[in-house]
Amino acid sequence: MTHNTANTASIDKTRKTVLIVHAHPEPTSLTRTMVDVAERTLREAGHEVLQSDLYAMGWKAVYDAQDFPVRSDIERLDFVRESGHAFHQGHQPADVAEEQRKLLAADLVILQFPLWWFGMPAIMKGWIDRVWAQGLAYGRHGQGNRIRYGEGGFEGRRAMVSVSTGGPAADYAPRGINGPIDQLLFPITHGTLFYPGMSVLKTHATHGTGRMTPEGVEAAMAAWRERLAHVFDEAPIAFRSQNGGDYPDHHELDEAVAPGITGFAAHVAA
Amino acid sequence: MTHNTANTASIDKTRKTVLIVHAHPEPTSLTRTMVDVAERTLREAGHEVLQSDLYAMGWKAVYDAQDFPVRSDIERLDFVRESGHAFHQGHQPADVAEEQRKLLAADLVILQFPLWWFGMPAIMKGWIDRVWAQGLAYGRHGQGNRIRYGEGGFEGRRAMVSVSTGGPAADYAPRGINGPIDQLLFPITHGTLFYPGMSVLKTHATHGTGRMTPEGVEAAMAAWRERLAHVFDEAPIAFRSQNGGDYPDHHELDEAVAPGITGFAAHVAA
Repeated sequence: MTHNTANTASIDKTRKTVLIVHAHPEPTSLTRTMVDVAERTLREAGHEVLQSDLYAMGWKAVYDAQDFPVRSDIERLDFVRESGHAFHQGHQPADVAEEQRKLLAADLVILQFPLWWFGMPAIMKGWIDRVWAQGLAYGRHGQGNRIRYGEGGFEGRRAMVSVSTGGPAADYAPRGINGPIDQLLFPITHGTLFYPGMSVLKTHATHGTGRMTPEGVEAAMAAWRERLAHVFDEAPIAFRSQNGGDYPDHHELDEAVAPGITGFAAHVAA
Repeated sequence: MTHNTANTASIDKTRKTVLIVHAHPEPTSLTRTMVDVAERTLREAGHEVLQSDLYAMGWKAVYDAQDFPVRSDIERLDFVRESGHAFHQGHQPADVAEEQRKLLAADLVILQFPLWWFGMPAIMKGWIDRVWAQGLAYGRHGQGNRIRYGEGGFEGRRAMVSVSTGGPAADYAPRGINGPIDQLLFPITHGTLFYPGMSVLKTHATHGTGRMTPEGVEAAMAAWRERLAHVFDEAPIAFRSQNGGDYPDHHELDEAVAPGITGFAAHVAA
């Protein structure tokens, strides 16, 4: 009995909850195949898996006045003000509150989507727009922008973007014509996931889905399973935290940090 | 009469059509104020102004099976295949066809939006997702990715992103914590507007809208009017065209071009 109890405790400690948010309506799409493989792989490893299948849910993509049934200011719609009011007063729409509940229950959030015009499909952008509430994802404790980038309402969670592209990997190489995939996704990895405090893992990119053979799909799924096997052990991207000393005025890098470097690269520690 | 005729011809030649696509439901928002100022300024300069007021139109943001009432493949939803099928066979939804008509009638397209999580509001992303059809915005003439970045269905038009941000300009400076505004918007300026052939103007950014005084708003509008006065004369961003010689294999930069430079900066000629 003692031995069994110890085993159970050990299992409980390593059992994690993963939320997979995904955006493709076709069940046989690569996106959905990735979701199926992730769910199976993570469950077999003993984890709990939650899904937000945005198309199946009929997710409301457009952030508008309907999101604020009880207004702070009925005359003028200010999204930041009304978002905070709804969050703090408990007047958020039920679908938004439920997604926040799932997010807060998760140890890891995976965003799985096809890259459309170098960003998320609109339905997933609308999931971010509506769920990332004032008072939760930004502007915590009435502190404006003082708590962000490494600290915030989603702190303690890991996040990963898993994206598929129709075009070949060469187009997303360091000198590829589209621009490097990590730079294209910086508004998401850094600006959307790290901002409210998540630890962001390296993006998992699956390229060339426009002309993928069955063997190519199988190789992509093998790579995905391998990636998921270590997803709770790998080191996150070393984005610099706002309040760790590198941004003394909370706006710009100290001149002694990454001297002479501008742009996205300066915000990742060497 | 001769004199009058000459004047009329001169007016016709300089008279342009501008399409302003915008995304904010609040009539007194900075976004809508920018739209009103642009419409008035451009009309006073003799131009025609079209608008796509996405919230007022109730624009359908989510790209899904409803966009393809007549399918090429009823078994499996492949967006690229069905988009091309609908475009070439004339089965696109009426709202999509109408937006394409307005785009093709325009000499200049202005995208006016508040920056939400470092990208477009979902309703505008869904305008791109649905309107940028296969056969028009990409994959022209059955040539796959051979015709893009500087050439394509929207060639001959100018485009400008006019974006507002709640945070201060310092956050978007070359070493600002959010990343530089031009890099954050590269997926839109380069990947979405230059891709189908538009000549993309420098982004017009209005920062600090979260705490703007009436004087600040007036200064922002003066800057906007001044910018619009020269909008048909200014040189576009010098993005490198795919077929101009810099990308011999249509995927990666030739090693002699911008030697040693990686990332977005390499795709802009010095």
